[in-house]
Amino acid sequence: MKRELLVENPRPDGYHLMLELYGCEAHKINSRKFLHQAVKSAVKQVGLTNLGSRFHQFEPHGVTGFTLLAQSHISLHTWPEYGYLVLDIFTCGDQEQADKLADHFLKRLRPSRINRQVVRKGFQYLPERP
Amino acid sequence: MKRELLVENPRPDGYHLMLELYGCEAHKINSRKFLHQAVKSAVKQVGLTNLGSRFHQFEPHGVTGFTLLAQSHISLHTWPEYGYLVLDIFTCGDQEQADKLADHFLKRLRPSRINRQVVRKGFQYLPERP
Repeated sequence: MKRELLVENPRPDGYHLMLELYGCEAHKINSRKFLHQAVKSAVKQVGLTNLGSRFHQFEPHGVTGFTLLAQSHISLHTWPEYGYLVLDIFTCGDQEQADKLADHFLKRLRPSRINRQVVRKGFQYLPERP
Repeated sequence: MKRELLVENPRPDGYHLMLELYGCEAHKINSRKFLHQAVKSAVKQVGLTNLGSRFHQFEPHGVTGFTLLAQSHISLHTWPEYGYLVLDIFTCGDQEQADKLADHFLKRLRPSRINRQVVRKGFQYLPERP
C-alpha cells in the first residue's frame, strides 16, 4: 500500500493529539466491542484508511486497543473503575481529519471533562542543536 | 488477563515516552521483520507482557507497527527515505522499565540524533480547573 501521507505531505511532520477523558460511563469504556466500533466508525466517517486493529479486554475491567492507519495510528486505554480513558491520535496526514476523528469519538463517549495535549513531531519541529 | 498495573499502581497515572530517531540506517527501518523483532526482543528483555502486535510494510518504503502490552503500548512509524523513526512507549507500569525498553531498542537502531519528550497522564497530573 502506498503511504497516503506521501501524496500531501512529503516530509514526515506529524501531529500527535493526546486526549484524556474523565467521567466516562463505565459500561461503555469497559466494552471492547463498543470501543472498537466507535473507533472504526470514526475512522470511516473522516475517510482515513484502516490497516487493522487489535483490542483487548481485561478482567475484571479495562480495555486497551490500537488501530493502525495508513496515516498513522489511534490507541486507547481505559480504566472503567475511574471513568477514565486515554486516547492518542497520531497523524502525518491532515490535522483537521485527526481533530474531526476525535470529535466523532467524543460524541459517543460524552466525558464530563477532557484534557487535551498536542505534540508536534518531525523535521519541521526539530529543535536546533545547542 | 489481570491488568498488571493494578498490582503496583492502583491509579491510572501514566508515563508516555516519545522518541524521534534521526539518522537511522534505511535498510533497518525499512524492514518490518527487523523492527518487529527489535520490539519483541526489547519487551522480553525488560519483562513486559506482550499482548500482540501488528506491523505493516508500506511500498515503496516505510513501516508502521504497534505492540499492545498489559502495561500499555509501543508504536512506531518509519520514513526510511529520511532515516527517521517515531517511537512511542506508553506505560502505566514501571517508568524505569519503559526507559530500559527504549534503551534496548536504541542499541539496535543507533540513530545519530534523538529527540525525547515525556508526557504525563492521569489523575495525578490533572491540571486544576480554572
